[in-house]
Order: sequence, then structure tokens, then C-alpha cells
Amino acid sequence: MATHGHAHASVTGAARRPVRLNLFAHACGHHSAAWRAPGSSVERLADITYWEELARIAERGRLDAVFLADGQSIGTAGVERGPAWMLEPLTALTAMARATERVGLVTTVSSTFWDPFHAARLLASLDHISRGRAGVNVVTSMTDEEARNHSMTALPGHAQRYATAGEFLEVLQGLWESWPMESILAEPDGAYVDPALLRPPLHRGEAFAVDGPLNVPTPPQGRPVLFQAGASEPGRALAARHAEGIYAVAWDLASARTYRGDIRSRAAALGRDPDALAVMPGLVPYVASTEEEARRRKAELDARLPVQDSLRQLSFFVGQDTSDWELDAPVPPLPPLEEFTGPKGRYATVLRILETARPTVRELLGLLAAGGGHATVIGTPERVADEIERWVDAGAADGFNLMPPTLPGGIEEFVDQVVPVLQRRGRFRCEYEGTTLRDHLGLPRPPQEIPAPTGS
Amino acid sequence: MATHGHAHASVTGAARRPVRLNLFAHACGHHSAAWRAPGSSVERLADITYWEELARIAERGRLDAVFLADGQSIGTAGVERGPAWMLEPLTALTAMARATERVGLVTTVSSTFWDPFHAARLLASLDHISRGRAGVNVVTSMTDEEARNHSMTALPGHAQRYATAGEFLEVLQGLWESWPMESILAEPDGAYVDPALLRPPLHRGEAFAVDGPLNVPTPPQGRPVLFQAGASEPGRALAARHAEGIYAVAWDLASARTYRGDIRSRAAALGRDPDALAVMPGLVPYVASTEEEARRRKAELDARLPVQDSLRQLSFFVGQDTSDWELDAPVPPLPPLEEFTGPKGRYATVLRILETARPTVRELLGLLAAGGGHATVIGTPERVADEIERWVDAGAADGFNLMPPTLPGGIEEFVDQVVPVLQRRGRFRCEYEGTTLRDHLGLPRPPQEIPAPTGS
Ligand SMILES: Cc1cc2nc3c(=O)[nH]c(=O)nc-3n(C[C@H](O)[C@H](O)[C@H](O)COP(=O)(O)O)c2cc1C
Ligand SMILES: Cc1cc2nc3c(=O)[nH]c(=O)nc-3n(C[C@H](O)[C@H](O)[C@H](O)COP(=O)(O)O)c2cc1C
Repeated sequence: MATHGHAHASVTGAARRPVRLNLFAHACGHHSAAWRAPGSSVERLADITYWEELARIAERGRLDAVFLADGQSIGTAGVERGPAWMLEPLTALTAMARATERVGLVTTVSSTFWDPFHAARLLASLDHISRGRAGVNVVTSMTDEEARNHSMTALPGHAQRYATAGEFLEVLQGLWESWPMESILAEPDGAYVDPALLRPPLHRGEAFAVDGPLNVPTPPQGRPVLFQAGASEPGRALAARHAEGIYAVAWDLASARTYRGDIRSRAAALGRDPDALAVMPGLVPYVASTEEEARRRKAELDARLPVQDSLRQLSFFVGQDTSDWELDAPVPPLPPLEEFTGPKGRYATVLRILETARPTVRELLGLLAAGGGHATVIGTPERVADEIERWVDAGAADGFNLMPPTLPGGIEEFVDQVVPVLQRRGRFRCEYEGTTLRDHLGLPRPPQEIPAPTGS
Repeated sequence: MATHGHAHASVTGAARRPVRLNLFAHACGHHSAAWRAPGSSVERLADITYWEELARIAERGRLDAVFLADGQSIGTAGVERGPAWMLEPLTALTAMARATERVGLVTTVSSTFWDPFHAARLLASLDHISRGRAGVNVVTSMTDEEARNHSMTALPGHAQRYATAGEFLEVLQGLWESWPMESILAEPDGAYVDPALLRPPLHRGEAFAVDGPLNVPTPPQGRPVLFQAGASEPGRALAARHAEGIYAVAWDLASARTYRGDIRSRAAALGRDPDALAVMPGLVPYVASTEEEARRRKAELDARLPVQDSLRQLSFFVGQDTSDWELDAPVPPLPPLEEFTGPKGRYATVLRILETARPTVRELLGLLAAGGGHATVIGTPERVADEIERWVDAGAADGFNLMPPTLPGGIEEFVDQVVPVLQRRGRFRCEYEGTTLRDHLGLPRPPQEIPAPTGS
């Protein structure tokens, strides 16, 4: 079977490929109680120097990129429990671009709420300003509260959102190619631009009608690197067609490997090279000089977490009210994935944790406190590096989306302690070889053919 | 008459008020042939260091702000004739904010094409990143080509666009107040945000429905400084109600004085303090150590301008085909302002030039070549400073929107030669007194009452 052949090739080939490392920079860190810890960065979240510092630390560690998530509402249900959003990511990343020279800068754009001409412009401009270091995680958004901030009464349905996302990505790509740099002649006695070289997409679709051309010329990378983070069937289909990086959720190596194999098969079936697609599951690292110390630090953070808050977060993850669940009893049975209508990826993770660890409610809360079910490694720098190598060598990941429990502390520890181990072992770059995010990820410069949508 | 009383107070009060100076940073400069000159900046337009350099020069001159215009299409009809747009202004200004410490940063947002939640967020974020230096020029846009980049088939009508602009500004202001900094408690053992202090606008209007609150907290200035540049009746009404700065077009002192008086009367009639509204006509300065040298430089630039290009630009300004106009004959009679359906402000200026100067077609083209009919001063630094003082003292302006014919040369000359004259005469600051754009312009920090729309 062609599908198996590709999945297998990836496993054997993986050991020789370099590890990708991406910093997911979120608020005071990914642990829900990070902002409550003494000396946390909670006072600095609206201060751009905090975000610039995170980008500089990532660059010191020669990481591929810094990634900022985004949401389109304050998240009223969660504002008491801790910080989510503060600065808008495109502006924050522009400042971060000017505070660094090499590290990639990945933002998040919702195709459900953004006008593609504005999005294409802002992203192209970020790519010019950063000299080819921009990336974009295209998401479809998750809540009615977000819709009600954008003149809609409710979120469009899941299938509708993904159909729009596909169209959105096609418009973006058309716009990025529409004003080629070569068209700028700038002849002192002649034309500034040769209009014959413009390629307006003249897009007429279900969701958008966009003539173009864009009024920002083709960005240095041809187009910003495209990321995707949806785990549902249409999410995977979109990722297989367009994504060059995937932010995945995987609790354990086995599920990560299955997921990566599936995505690579889908990409190959569309005629794409599966190696031009980096699958990066989230990784929550607790690093210290001894495993005991790392566990102690995790327990200290966990202890700052109000149980009621964790229960509320769990209610969101599983789509039902969990506030009356008995803390020291086993987690009650949950409906199968097919019946769940919320974000499927995270729900699948919860089901996976229940299946593999059979935890009590209290134990489940602890496992979800940082990152909500992403892989968690607790131990010495060597132990964390071992685990990273193990996943990559097993074909379960091309690298990781680092989700340190606290920031900036957690990423400093990783960069200063884990990265040198990976470098000594020859698994991670000691210097950037290139200057663009595409260079770092070993991706070709577009335009390439965009595979046509399949009939499904 | 109350109207006259106010207008008169402004005239006598003006002499003691400081001059406002704003750099309108556009492409290689405001002269249509600037990019054709030897040593022009045309190769650097996509290079953010060019824009950062302009902001640093403005700051060296202690200017109030740097302003970037914006359009929502490449402007196909004009791409051969010279550069218009390149980097997207919100991202460019974010980088410029990090390259400077004091100068204000004014962007342009079209209320016809922007979703107010996105616009409010980006602007609030720019205000946080710049620590209170953001401003926004809200425009209603001008062409169908722009509409066709945003899933519309044509530009909505003029009245419709201004109705939307009014609603847009109300939504923005509601959103900026909706997540007050005081609501962020960040108590280690308590709540992060007190939800009782959130003020979601729950806006339900004709053009927009926006619940809020915004997911960026109230910006340092309360809100970015609001600018307006529309000269039509609804444009003036909008400016009188909301604007704190006005980018005007005035060919001569008399028309500038009439315009400023009108705007101040309208603001006063709405219960606003007319002194909290800076009217800044455009000023195209040709500065050199002798007037002869300044004239020579202007003639040199004018000579680089292909006559056919200027005729095409003129066609746009007057809304009719001028390509067969006889160059050395007087300009043919034009229809009165009321019959003109395009941008009224600039058309009024052309009528004013015809009335005051009775030029031939060739002479009119020369007068429009830089800035399209803004006031033009040619001479020594003292002469330019004299003219600035004369307009401000006559109540014709609160200061000027500087439109140097070439950049960066033209603004360097102004900052290094004209600013010191104004400083010696006690008419311009030698150091910034405050840190925010509101400080520079002597504007109060909102929230103030927003005057209700009048019944017109
Ligand atoms: C690491 C990671 C980061 C994500 N970042 C965002 C984000 O910034 N904004 C957002 O709306 N959704 C984000 N998501 C959610 C997904 O993009 C997607 O919308 C969600 O998983 C639901 O889609 P699905 O039904 O295809 O799984 C993220 C998911 C993952 C795993
Ligand atoms: C100095 C100045 C700057 C302007 N900048 C812009 C701009 O960046 N984008 C835009 O669409 N219109 C711009 N305009 C045009 C006006 O905002 C307005 O849309 C135009 O004058 C038509 O409106 P009106 O009919 O009210 O005059 C500018 C006008 C002036 C005088």
C-alpha cells in the first residue's frame, strides 16, 4: 500500500533528519498556575520587552521559530483564572522581528474572521520586515463569543469553517504571488512597475471575492511558512494540502506516530513530498539538574492551581459540566470521539489519557494543568534530550513545539541545558545555516504547485 | 453668532500656541518624480530600516508624529508612474516605534474595509508597544478597485461610507474602554481579572455588531489619537465630532483659515473645546540656503516628470479626461464643486488654484506635482519658518503636515534647518515635554464624553 510505504520511509529516514524546535510563547507559561508563582512575568505581559526577550532567548538557543497563538475574544469564562491574550500577535511579532536576526516568527490568523486581503498584507509585510522569517498558523476558531465580536451571531459550522479556510489559503497564496518583485523596474526615465508582470488572482469563491493584486510585493520567502493545528478530519485534509508545519497534540509516542504517519500519507497522496512538512507535537518540559528537583518544581506549580479552576477547564475540554465530579474517584466514562462536537484534537487526547493511564479525576487535572494534554517530560537535561531523540527516531515527530510551564524561566532552562545536549549529540544546529524560516525548516521556496482540492 | 465668536477666539489665541509639526512619510517623497531623481530611496522602500530612519529623523527634529497614509489596492492606473504602497503601515509603524522613543506614530485605517474588532486590537497593541504614541487617521476610501479586494463589487456611496465611519469610531472607542487596566488584579491566590470591571460595549448597529470586550487592555493613551482627513460635509461633521487632529488640504492661507474656522465652530457647537483639535494643512517645503537654489531644485525635480503622467493624475483629480488639454492654454472651465462626485477636498483645491492663480495647464501641472495642491513654500529656512508662523498666527493652522518633495533628504533639511529657526523664535519645542502623542499635542486623556451624533 502506497500509504504504508510512505509512513515507513519516514520512520527509517527520521533518525538522520535534524530535530525542529519551536517555542510556543504563551502568557506567563503553559502551566495554568504559572502567573501565580512568585517572580512570575504577569506584570510584564503588556510590555513588549518581555516578548522581545523571549524571542532573543529562542534565538540564543538557535530555535527554528517563536510562535504566538491567538483568539478573537477575551474568553469571559476564563478571565478570572489567568491571562490568555494581551498584545495583538502581528504587531508583537513585528517588534520581536526587530529585536532578533534569525529566529522565525509564527503568528496565528483565523480564517473564520479575517479578510484575506488584510491578512495577506500584514503577513507579507511581517515577512519583509523580518527579512523572510514569518510563518502563519491558520486556525478556524472555536467559540460563539469570538463570532459575536465580528458581526456574527454564532460560529459557522465546522465543515463550513474548514471550507472557508481552504479558500482563504488559496486567496492568500494567490495574493502573495500577485505583485512579483521582478515587476518593479524603477527605471529613472521609464516605468516604476511593469503592469504586464502583475498577476491579479481575480478570485471568485464561496466566501471571498478578491481581485488583487496585493499592494505589498511578494514577500522574501515567496510566502510565509504555513502552519496548521487542526486535528479533525477536515483539519488533517487542510494540513495535508497546504501546511508546511503542523502543531500537533500527542500525549504519547504511539498516538504521535499514528498522527504523523496519517498526515504524511495524506500529503504523499496529494503528490507532496512528506519531508517538506514538519510535524511538531507540543512538549511540556520540566527540566532540572535532578529528576527529583524537576518533580518538586512541578508539584510546587500544581499546588498553586485552584481545583475549581482546573475542573472548569476540564468542562471545556470534554464539553460537559465536570464541577460535581468526585475528585478521588476514577474519571466517569466519556462519549466516543465521533459524538463530540467541540475541538476534536484535545478531546481525543483526553480519551487517550483515560485509556492509557486510567487516572482519578484529580490525577487527570494534574496531567492537563500544563498545555492541556500535550506530552510532558520531567527530568534532567539528558533525560529530556533522550525523549526528544526517541520520538524523532521512532517517526513520531519531526521536532517539538516547546510549551514551557513557566516563561521566561522554562525556556531559558531548555535553551541553556537541553539544547547543548542535543548539539553535542549532533541532533541540533550549533549555528543557523540560513537566514529565513524556510531555510531553518529545510523548506523549498514557493511558488510550487498547490495540489487541487480533493473531491471529499 | 456663536460660530463667529469661536472662530475669532481661535485667531487671537493662535499666536501663543505652539506649532504642531507632523511628517507625512510617503514613498520617496511627495513629488511625483521623487523616485526618478539620482540617489533616490526607491530601492529601499521594502526595507524597514528606511522607514525607521525617517522616524528617527522626525524624532531628532522633535516633531509630534510620523504619519503613514494607506490604500487598499495597488492602484493599477498609477503603478507605472511611481511607488504608492509597499509595507503595510501598522506593521511598519510597530517597527518604527521600537526604533524611536518619543515621536508619535499615526497610521491610516479605512472604516469601509476594516472590521472594527481587528482594527481596535491592532491599534491598541501599537499604543502599548509604543508606550502611548499611536494615532489613527480614519478614512472612508475612494475607489472601486479597493472595494474589489474586499469581497465587494463597488465602493458603497459617500453618505453610506461616512455613516459607517461614525459607527466604526464609536465601536473603536467602546472597545478601547472595555478592558480597563484596573480590572487586572493578578492576585497570586485570587482572580487574574475582576470580570465585574469589564465593560463590553454590546454594540448593535447598522454596519457592525460587536459584543466585546476587546482582548487587549485599554491602551496607555486611553485611546490612540484620532485623526481625520475628509473635507466633504459629512467628512467635516465626522471630524468635528471625533477628530483630535485634522490633515487638511489648503492651497492658500485664506482657504485654510476658512476651513479651520469652520471645523472649530462645528466642534464648539457639539460642546467640544476647539483647542483640543489640531488642524494641520499639508505643507510642501523646498528649503535651501538661498531662494534661488530652492527654486533650482524644484525645477530640477519638475523636469523629471513625464507630462503625460501629470495629465493622467490631473484627470483623476478633476474627474474627467484631460489628456487632450492644450498645455500652454489656460485651464478650461470646470464644473462647480457641488456637481463633482469624487474626493471633494482636492477638487476644491484645484478650483481654488484656478481662481487665485489662473494658470495655464502646464503651470497647473507644476503646482500639483508635489502633494497635489497642498501649500508649497520655496525658499530659505527663515522664509519657510516665516510662512509657518504667518499661517499659525493668522488662525489658518495649528501646525503643518509636512510633505517633503523628496525623502529622506527633504525632511533632513527641514529638521536641520527650519526647526532650529522655529526653536530660536520660541515657536517649537527644543525637547519633548511628555512621552505620549497626547502629551505632544496637548490633548487630554480620554474617556471624555463623545458628543452624540447630530440629527443631520
Ligand atoms: C498547539 C496548538 C495551537 C493552537 N493554536 C490555536 C490558536 O492560536 N487559535 C485558535 O483559535 N486555535 C488554535 N488551536 C486549535 C486548532 O487550530 C483547531 O482550531 C482546533 O484544534 C479545532 O480544530 P479541529 O476540529 O480540526 O481539531 C491550536 C491547536 C494546537 C494543537
Ligand atoms: C493629507 C491627507 C491624507 C489622506 N490620507 C488618506 C489615506 O491615507 N487613505 C485614504 O484612503 N484617503 C486619504 N485621504 C483622503 C481623505 O481621507 C478622504 O477620504 C477624501 O478626502 C475623500 O473624503 P471627502 O469626500 O470627505 O473629502 C487623505 C486626505 C488628506 C488631505
